[in-house]
Amino acid sequence: MCGIIGVTGIADAARVAYLGLYSLQHRGQESSGIVAVDGEGAARSHRGMGLVSDVFDEHVFSELPGDVAIGHSRYSTAGTSVLANAQPMLARYREGPLALAHNGNLTNAVQLRSDLVTKGSIFQSSSDSEVLVHLIARSEAREPEDQLLDALERVEGAYSLVITVGRTLYAIVDPRGFRPLVLGRLGHGWVVASETCALDIAGATLVRELEPGDFVRIHGEDVDDLPKLPAKPHRRCVFELVYFSRPDSTVFHRSVDAVRRALGRELAREQPAPGADCVFSVPDSSNAMALGFSEESGIKLEHALIRNHYVGRTFIHPAQAGRMAKVKIKFNPVREVLEGIRQHLGVESLGYLSLDGMKRAAGGNSAEFCDACFSGDYPTAIPDESKRSRNAAPLQVTMAV
Amino acid sequence: MCGIIGVTGIADAARVAYLGLYSLQHRGQESSGIVAVDGEGAARSHRGMGLVSDVFDEHVFSELPGDVAIGHSRYSTAGTSVLANAQPMLARYREGPLALAHNGNLTNAVQLRSDLVTKGSIFQSSSDSEVLVHLIARSEAREPEDQLLDALERVEGAYSLVITVGRTLYAIVDPRGFRPLVLGRLGHGWVVASETCALDIAGATLVRELEPGDFVRIHGEDVDDLPKLPAKPHRRCVFELVYFSRPDSTVFHRSVDAVRRALGRELAREQPAPGADCVFSVPDSSNAMALGFSEESGIKLEHALIRNHYVGRTFIHPAQAGRMAKVKIKFNPVREVLEGIRQHLGVESLGYLSLDGMKRAAGGNSAEFCDACFSGDYPTAIPDESKRSRNAAPLQVTMAV
Amino acid sequence: MCGIIGVTGIADAARVAYLGLYSLQHRGQESSGIVAVDGEGAARSHRGMGLVSDVFDEHVFSELPGDVAIGHSRYSTAGTSVLANAQPMLARYREGPLALAHNGNLTNAVQLRSDLVTKGSIFQSSSDSEVLVHLIARSEAREPEDQLLDALERVEGAYSLVITVGRTLYAIVDPRGFRPLVLGRLGHGWVVASETCALDIAGATLVRELEPGDFVRIHGEDVDDLPKLPAKPHRRCVFELVYFSRPDSTVFHRSVDAVRRALGRELAREQPAPGADCVFSVPDSSNAMALGFSEESGIKLEHALIRNHYVGRTFIHPAQAGRMAKVKIKFNPVREVLEGIRQHLGVESLGYLSLDGMKRAAGGNSAEFCDACFSGDYPTAIPDESKRSRNAAPLQVTMAV
Amino acid sequence: MCGIIGVTGIADAARVAYLGLYSLQHRGQESSGIVAVDGEGAARSHRGMGLVSDVFDEHVFSELPGDVAIGHSRYSTAGTSVLANAQPMLARYREGPLALAHNGNLTNAVQLRSDLVTKGSIFQSSSDSEVLVHLIARSEAREPEDQLLDALERVEGAYSLVITVGRTLYAIVDPRGFRPLVLGRLGHGWVVASETCALDIAGATLVRELEPGDFVRIHGEDVDDLPKLPAKPHRRCVFELVYFSRPDSTVFHRSVDAVRRALGRELAREQPAPGADCVFSVPDSSNAMALGFSEESGIKLEHALIRNHYVGRTFIHPAQAGRMAKVKIKFNPVREVLEGIRQHLGVESLGYLSLDGMKRAAGGNSAEFCDACFSGDYPTAIPDESKRSRNAAPLQVTMAV
Repeated sequence: MCGIIGVTGIADAARVAYLGLYSLQHRGQESSGIVAVDGEGAARSHRGMGLVSDVFDEHVFSELPGDVAIGHSRYSTAGTSVLANAQPMLARYREGPLALAHNGNLTNAVQLRSDLVTKGSIFQSSSDSEVLVHLIARSEAREPEDQLLDALERVEGAYSLVITVGRTLYAIVDPRGFRPLVLGRLGHGWVVASETCALDIAGATLVRELEPGDFVRIHGEDVDDLPKLPAKPHRRCVFELVYFSRPDSTVFHRSVDAVRRALGRELAREQPAPGADCVFSVPDSSNAMALGFSEESGIKLEHALIRNHYVGRTFIHPAQAGRMAKVKIKFNPVREVLEGIRQHLGVESLGYLSLDGMKRAAGGNSAEFCDACFSGDYPTAIPDESKRSRNAAPLQVTMAV
Repeated sequence: MCGIIGVTGIADAARVAYLGLYSLQHRGQESSGIVAVDGEGAARSHRGMGLVSDVFDEHVFSELPGDVAIGHSRYSTAGTSVLANAQPMLARYREGPLALAHNGNLTNAVQLRSDLVTKGSIFQSSSDSEVLVHLIARSEAREPEDQLLDALERVEGAYSLVITVGRTLYAIVDPRGFRPLVLGRLGHGWVVASETCALDIAGATLVRELEPGDFVRIHGEDVDDLPKLPAKPHRRCVFELVYFSRPDSTVFHRSVDAVRRALGRELAREQPAPGADCVFSVPDSSNAMALGFSEESGIKLEHALIRNHYVGRTFIHPAQAGRMAKVKIKFNPVREVLEGIRQHLGVESLGYLSLDGMKRAAGGNSAEFCDACFSGDYPTAIPDESKRSRNAAPLQVTMAV
Repeated sequence: MCGIIGVTGIADAARVAYLGLYSLQHRGQESSGIVAVDGEGAARSHRGMGLVSDVFDEHVFSELPGDVAIGHSRYSTAGTSVLANAQPMLARYREGPLALAHNGNLTNAVQLRSDLVTKGSIFQSSSDSEVLVHLIARSEAREPEDQLLDALERVEGAYSLVITVGRTLYAIVDPRGFRPLVLGRLGHGWVVASETCALDIAGATLVRELEPGDFVRIHGEDVDDLPKLPAKPHRRCVFELVYFSRPDSTVFHRSVDAVRRALGRELAREQPAPGADCVFSVPDSSNAMALGFSEESGIKLEHALIRNHYVGRTFIHPAQAGRMAKVKIKFNPVREVLEGIRQHLGVESLGYLSLDGMKRAAGGNSAEFCDACFSGDYPTAIPDESKRSRNAAPLQVTMAV
Repeated sequence: MCGIIGVTGIADAARVAYLGLYSLQHRGQESSGIVAVDGEGAARSHRGMGLVSDVFDEHVFSELPGDVAIGHSRYSTAGTSVLANAQPMLARYREGPLALAHNGNLTNAVQLRSDLVTKGSIFQSSSDSEVLVHLIARSEAREPEDQLLDALERVEGAYSLVITVGRTLYAIVDPRGFRPLVLGRLGHGWVVASETCALDIAGATLVRELEPGDFVRIHGEDVDDLPKLPAKPHRRCVFELVYFSRPDSTVFHRSVDAVRRALGRELAREQPAPGADCVFSVPDSSNAMALGFSEESGIKLEHALIRNHYVGRTFIHPAQAGRMAKVKIKFNPVREVLEGIRQHLGVESLGYLSLDGMKRAAGGNSAEFCDACFSGDYPTAIPDESKRSRNAAPLQVTMAV
């Protein structure tokens, strides 16, 4: 899972992309990057490991001029955590600079990559997304749109994409619609992003969510809906609503916060805890669920755990120092709340929400969801990845800059 | 306001100090530092601008050996934000290395500094705390304890201190007791810290809070209560309970969380809002107050604002990008929650808690509190600082390391 | 012009490559890099802008394990000075990792690149050397040697190459032999380098110079001479002897120092200066020539200019400071030497060595030299590079690591 | 031994100080620093470990405004190599900012420091130079000049000093004149520096060398000779002429190059080598001596060793790589030169120049030289430094900036 954003028609587009990535940081903390395209069509890229706020600074922005930009925050689902895998991908091909930011997983990437390598394509990363870049570059079609279609016809799996070819921006959602993508208006320009919270932070207005199979071209002021990709059954990722997306976002036409509140209510119905003294959440991911549980059950809500707001990726765990409990670094119990209320805190029972309950809370037609993470029931074939070709042997590149 | 910690009798004391500072980060984000003292009495210091997690890493710890350490996280109430002002202060004087970490403000520092400079003392910082170091170094007393007392007799104002002279640790609270300081036990060693949350993170057990005027010496396993400083009326900082301290800490013998809950209940009584649809907090500082208000008023609690957990000090504000609302970088409203209330969100009325209500919530004898931040009623004389001496002219030092 | 090195059969080969690059630093200061291949055939790369000693440190070496390595120091003759152009190039292709370090210029690179891009190859750099990598990857031959030959048949111009395919090292000199390459023995392993000074620093023994058209394969202990490339007239770069190479190197079977001494003697014969008071060099590049001139003419040698040994690439020219002569930053005259001997130093006459004189000093058959830098008489066709294809539009990538 | 420079009356004085330090880099590579004083009398400092060109960049200069500056390049003769010991020292005292750069060694610093510490002075470094700062700050005299004299009366040993008090620059040489200091004119301003090569690089004209005991005050356009320090027998450091200073400098009224040439001639007279084939130097420190030897003996000069110009402090010695000779990293023999000459290069005899011969070459009255480095005959008492006071226990400070 990753966060992606595209911006056009706005001066200093890289700064808007930065803002958007900042609000999408929860979707990936491994690396982030922005490609900006200037008025001459020259594309410039900056990528780095770590958080958006660590990777970019004023100097970087001064090196990323232009009114077109795309950005990416990576959460590595597979492959190594190295800079080469950071996105957006940027390559020169015969149409000029091509930049691509991808949220999703391509299930047939290993086979496609092997084919491409046999034909002499040289890969710079171990990311499945680079397969798309090579397929586009090798297409024999004349128009960029057709080159993209050639490539998309070959890939299986999940992809929400923002792509620039020269100064034109494309926004694409795969036919099953696994991952969200929204279109917003900002001044005379346009913003495409994974979630509505990225529109909010930039002051953009939501125009619409992209539907599964949507293929949109944005050039200057013009937004064109190109013919949709061939239709397939929708398979929205239910985890987007349950965990990935921010509560203040609207995803798949639903308020994420409302879904999470409903999850709490469903849990209270399925797993009532009549003798309980209070309900509390592990902040902040289950705040809304605890509220829903409390509403439905009538059991009082408490804040029993305090979250340390300075917890970050650079924390050094002082293992040598001995008896310290690891969890206390992030959370510490509020003694009085827990003690008031018995002597020892312990788990007396543990209850889960059912898959059906989850889908009820998510609302709509339960068939439209992909719940493979829970059920193992994948909507697309997952090939046996053990037959890795020779070209995937470890290859590590570091750079001093 | 700052966070301080002292550790003795624990291998790799610097790591425990680090953990404690990490949990006290809310008390100051400008700079942080640790001084460690090894078995030979050699003292080593590392200080840096920024968060604890940015200033320290494994390499730094390897350079800070020893079983005695003190640490400091600075919040600059006055003076410039420069490395020279970061604490702990570390100086050689005739007893050997002297390290000092100070939470509080000395109200007669300008005059004392001027006197010392006239006598040939050379200051390295613009911090009031350095005055203490020079007073100790110039004392003609024989014993370190008496040198400290000589210095403390000269200063006015607020000071909670941890000091090392050689391998001995001193923990001191001024006679009015403005700032908290607690003593805890960890294995065979001791931990002194601004708040109990620093004991919790390190797995230490609270032994007692230091009382106003306490002067404690810790050497190896031994903790000695030296004669108390001359008594003065207590003036506990009420803001510690209302805002500064973490809710999971116990401060001035009170649960901070319980005080904040009581503040919410007091507000509900003083400023009822009978027609209100819901209660919500600006996360996370007013979470407990919102809960108290909801309990007392019976009005439903909601989570209407989502906090971005990646907000940090390095955020670059993209002013150029235009119409974006500044507040949205940190918080974003959950549209559905607020829209369920009416069409437009606006302030219809604004109600404050009274000073008396605040003290009622804080509990105990209201005379023991310092409420100067609210009332302007300072318990110690504040001298006219405009008569600055020539030696305070700007002097800036940078270093490349 | 660049420096290249290849190492096999020696533990920590990257360290030997580093030493060699260090002694070849005069051949290029823009960037440097090393690729190391471990016992499993995994290849790792580290490249950076600047001097060898700035780009590598202990940490980097720990990340470059293996007994096979190639290295490169780049001097940019064309193209932008960016990290993407630093070598060695490292790519995955169907045989596994391919690494390549190139000294020379390919004269038909622009046309080849344009063809490759049309076929869907994606270039990462603007360097002509990357063309070779793509040609190898696209070869349909079965064996790596044949893939290399396929590529070499397509390119025109100058190339001394060290290449690894898996754990096999190839050393190749183009049929005209523009650039030097030497083979040395170190313990049970082998070292290939641009100049003999790289063998000396590593303690390796010179085995032989590679001749024009040589194609050598080294695997483990075995060195195999593969069939030579199709013969062409030799065109050794005379500038290697006159300026590029280090005086302590043996290049094209000649002592560079002896050639430079001979240049000085030739100049003394062609351009005698009978009234001159002394001979002096601009240190250090013309030291040997001044000695030769002094020997031949009998005019006394002096050291009249002192070189600042700390001159480096990071020097900041303080233009604002005004009247300072630029040359004095690197050289300063020794007043007494120049004043002894008239009042004002000025140029009274200026004499150059003839092209024939230069070739006489270089020795051997003058037809074997390329003197295009002086005469403009290029041995290979130089295409009109102005017809650059669209894919060479500016594309800039920076990375934060 | 160190390099010092002072600049007044020149816009961007820090840049001129930088240039001067750059040309004085041979006098010390451990650390360097500059203090600049602006029109308001505000002093700013930047210091760092390493070479001048590594410590300063454009950003640093922008932080060092002002038309008065002093600079220092440190070579540590004693004490630890830590940033705290880098100069110039900068302190606030009652006259305002005081900055001091010192070339030399104070022989009674340990005793003075112990006295000062007993009186409550707090030291920041282990450098003897800081003693001077404290003595000045503790002087009860009214005028800065008298405060400086108070301090100088207390110290023994070698000191060439540049000091700023507010916007006034002082240049001082101790009565024995161990270390050089020269005064130059640049536009409407003044430059004081350790050697004339620093004047040359900045385009300044030599006005005069400071004589032993000189005490010069420069303020704006005015240069005042204050009364000389009480006279003592002169003891010029002969090593300045023999090794420390740059050949293009004039030191103690002598051309350094001429002295070194004379050293070679003396050696040829004292230690003739009648059967020798050639004379060669280890570049570059003995270049002039080899020339002198060749002149006097008639034996031919050769360049037999090639110096690697990229040798720097950051070189990583690849000990693991085995048989490489250490010396080859810096020098490599020119095979042909040495082989022309017999089969194996070996030392057949070794001859030194006598102390008398050295002084003859240095010229003038041999009694005026300090030759303690050779003879052990120190002109000032060297106290027993083993009685170190407690306050010199190890104290290490690192900083993250």
